[in-house]
Amino acid sequence: MSKTMAGNYFEDFALGQEIVHATPRTITEGDVSLYTALYGARFALTSAQTFARGLGMERMPVDGLLAFHVVFGKSVPDVSLNAVANLGYAGGRFGAPVHVGDTLTATSTVIGLKPNSSGATGNVYVRTIGRNQHDVAVVDYVRWVMVNRRSRVAADELGEATIPELPGAVPAEDLVVPWRVVGGYDTALAGSPYLWDDYEVGERIDHADGMTIEESDHMLATRLYQNTAKVHFDQHAQATTRTGRRLIYGGHVISLARALSFNGLGNALSVAAVNGGNHANPTFAGDTIYAWSEVLERLELPGRHDVGALRIRTVAAKDHPCADFPLRGEDGRYLPHVVLDLDYTVLMPRR
Amino acid sequence: MSKTMAGNYFEDFALGQEIVHATPRTITEGDVSLYTALYGARFALTSAQTFARGLGMERMPVDGLLAFHVVFGKSVPDVSLNAVANLGYAGGRFGAPVHVGDTLTATSTVIGLKPNSSGATGNVYVRTIGRNQHDVAVVDYVRWVMVNRRSRVAADELGEATIPELPGAVPAEDLVVPWRVVGGYDTALAGSPYLWDDYEVGERIDHADGMTIEESDHMLATRLYQNTAKVHFDQHAQATTRTGRRLIYGGHVISLARALSFNGLGNALSVAAVNGGNHANPTFAGDTIYAWSEVLERLELPGRHDVGALRIRTVAAKDHPCADFPLRGEDGRYLPHVVLDLDYTVLMPRR
Amino acid sequence: MSKTMAGNYFEDFALGQEIVHATPRTITEGDVSLYTALYGARFALTSAQTFARGLGMERMPVDGLLAFHVVFGKSVPDVSLNAVANLGYAGGRFGAPVHVGDTLTATSTVIGLKPNSSGATGNVYVRTIGRNQHDVAVVDYVRWVMVNRRSRVAADELGEATIPELPGAVPAEDLVVPWRVVGGYDTALAGSPYLWDDYEVGERIDHADGMTIEESDHMLATRLYQNTAKVHFDQHAQATTRTGRRLIYGGHVISLARALSFNGLGNALSVAAVNGGNHANPTFAGDTIYAWSEVLERLELPGRHDVGALRIRTVAAKDHPCADFPLRGEDGRYLPHVVLDLDYTVLMPRR
Repeated sequence: MSKTMAGNYFEDFALGQEIVHATPRTITEGDVSLYTALYGARFALTSAQTFARGLGMERMPVDGLLAFHVVFGKSVPDVSLNAVANLGYAGGRFGAPVHVGDTLTATSTVIGLKPNSSGATGNVYVRTIGRNQHDVAVVDYVRWVMVNRRSRVAADELGEATIPELPGAVPAEDLVVPWRVVGGYDTALAGSPYLWDDYEVGERIDHADGMTIEESDHMLATRLYQNTAKVHFDQHAQATTRTGRRLIYGGHVISLARALSFNGLGNALSVAAVNGGNHANPTFAGDTIYAWSEVLERLELPGRHDVGALRIRTVAAKDHPCADFPLRGEDGRYLPHVVLDLDYTVLMPRR
Repeated sequence: MSKTMAGNYFEDFALGQEIVHATPRTITEGDVSLYTALYGARFALTSAQTFARGLGMERMPVDGLLAFHVVFGKSVPDVSLNAVANLGYAGGRFGAPVHVGDTLTATSTVIGLKPNSSGATGNVYVRTIGRNQHDVAVVDYVRWVMVNRRSRVAADELGEATIPELPGAVPAEDLVVPWRVVGGYDTALAGSPYLWDDYEVGERIDHADGMTIEESDHMLATRLYQNTAKVHFDQHAQATTRTGRRLIYGGHVISLARALSFNGLGNALSVAAVNGGNHANPTFAGDTIYAWSEVLERLELPGRHDVGALRIRTVAAKDHPCADFPLRGEDGRYLPHVVLDLDYTVLMPRR
Repeated sequence: MSKTMAGNYFEDFALGQEIVHATPRTITEGDVSLYTALYGARFALTSAQTFARGLGMERMPVDGLLAFHVVFGKSVPDVSLNAVANLGYAGGRFGAPVHVGDTLTATSTVIGLKPNSSGATGNVYVRTIGRNQHDVAVVDYVRWVMVNRRSRVAADELGEATIPELPGAVPAEDLVVPWRVVGGYDTALAGSPYLWDDYEVGERIDHADGMTIEESDHMLATRLYQNTAKVHFDQHAQATTRTGRRLIYGGHVISLARALSFNGLGNALSVAAVNGGNHANPTFAGDTIYAWSEVLERLELPGRHDVGALRIRTVAAKDHPCADFPLRGEDGRYLPHVVLDLDYTVLMPRR
């Protein structure tokens, strides 16, 4: 029998099944620098030890999205190696902050299964939890993917569908706030004069800068996350697909959009939740990514007057600067250059 | 007199000569992350502190191949700057495990010299040893290269040839086994259910995945190893060569093939020996590398019931998936898409 | 009002103005490795802990140019986001050595303003100081840039010019020498037999090797330095410019030339000053960089017999090997393939 792992097909998943994902991964200082080199993020909390200490943390935390990518990567060989499409995320919540030296592991629980009428695929819903070496959750989220069946079935043999109730936006009381503002907060060092109080619901911000992606960049990133999805790496195989190109990992675009968002959201020091997300169109090497954001909600945090949360929609577009805030066309569908529509919650100091 | 180092020519080598190579190099956490980002390796022992500790090591070791590349790189300016071809490796043995913070140095001894009948080149055989800051060997190996002469000589002035006896495969009793299995071994975390006992001599495994190489990737790698071979870096000069392209460092392909081999050899936690190797054809940017392996030998280790060794042949091919296990054509020569034929020994937990 | 930072225009600068730049940045082991991977530098002092200790330093210092790039990067959003051209550097001096774990911040003082007669731009002169977490200067330098005006003014409304006196080459007594030679100095490990005493004023050295730059390389570097200059990153916008290409950060070429200079200046263990510099022509991805150097001055250091300084001119050229020491044409202008003319001071052990 072959010892090569072919990944799971729709038939291989069972409701309630728990999957322990392989390769525990110790986060190093190298990951921190590579993350900076890949996206150019400038948020002060994850750039400087001194700044993190000033916010009451013993050590500088690692960017939460880096932890997310590492955890996500672990789930790929078991959950989405045979995926046709990543359909969505929901209820993503960042728990204990991650530090250099922490070792991350991941498990997923199958919380929903929906055979598709084609008989060729089905949707798999999993809740994935990433934990540190103390078994404390650092990130958990729901995602669902369309997965190939090993063998096609007839319409009357599809089996039952169990679609889980998807969590809405993570409520304020469930957000983990790992830092606090004591004494002063240095907006000059942080790089933006605008604090939580200055943002208004409905306000839109063009992040102005653009970043072109090269093949090396996204492959370095995805290998760093030990993500094994073939579509990102294998040009020989991709040459025969419809696009003829390697697809860029959606998470790469998320991190790029978050880095670009510094220009306008500089004090959004950490991401506390990913409420939902859509990779509206594929991204390829050579595309230049721009982004804009809209403030969806301004959340007070229970018992906290130093920090507030902003629920943000950040939209990324390729080869299209975002001064006109592109999103959907008149037909209600995403415009062809829109590549990401992300609903997430950031933490920001208050006045 | 010019202060520029032009490298040694065949005339500059003497039998028994010992060469101290330049630039001691401290291994950092950044090297560990870059190695992951360059190849995407997923072996648990070199990915997670916790996993290494579970195998009785105080700290997570660095991938032995990274140490090999660093040591190899040091030897390039002295041994192979004027090389026409890397002809082979033999008797490579990994000694003390390498950890972050270790400083590696390298020396080579000339163990053989063979003038070629052309009068224009000669083969130089060296034994290279890489040591840590405690002067303990971390890797040693024999390699031989065809080196240009500074001046061509006539057929009757070639001089004598001394061809060393090349070591065969490193025997089981010479392998260093730096870890042990005490208590349980978690195959789910390790990423493969197959242990030493499950592999049979002659068994062949298609590693399935493919990885496309970009110019940036292999140059980042080779610079990280402080390897100065011009053919990898200088497109302006390469443009006038027969291939017109930069050549990819053979060691880059070795590391890539090793990373791909995780899918089928996931519990091959460390490489203990490189018995021999052939870069069958050159690799260029844009090539997609696939790999397959054959189990050559199953070695019991003296006094050990927890760990065994497998002698493996891993073959890498470019732009050719390896389900058909490509190797040699009917004429006995390597097929044109085969780029690596590596004979090495890995350590794997036993049942 | 928009929360997007559009950068300062000429009108926004005032003489004597002090600007605190954003994003303090902790240097990690990852930065050290990435710096090696990006340029392939082989100077022993910044490669090996053991070598640094042998020179009386408690820990291996980080390459001074890495610190320079990080500090420079911080100044970009405030000083040169709307720059038309980087006109020059002067009086660059390296202070306390930088180590892994240090956090760098930067401030700039406006020391000169010169409206240009076009009415569309003006030259801004700043002195930028990078400091560590103990508020000790690690690098300071003067640079001047041509910056766009927000609105064009008429010739009679230009305002007054204040052009600062630019510092000449940093004198020997102002150089910081953070290491010393006690007992022996190992030239074999260092990689060059030539010490301070062996260099003569006027001597020219062809560094021989060439290095081709890829888009990924220079963008990884510039993001690592959190440099936000759009011209390096945004191909979509650059496509409509005169060159149609992304421009490579001048500092990337400086680091590349310094790495290439190892072949001929291997014992130039650290850079103590950048006296001046010119990016003679732009560099683009695909260019192969070569370099040559000339010894401008041999400086004794007050009270030191173990170490001396060399004032060096290093010239980098693209797609043009430097055996003919290219610099200026008969018309006195830089030759079209010359991309860098750097005047700097290195420290080197004496006999």
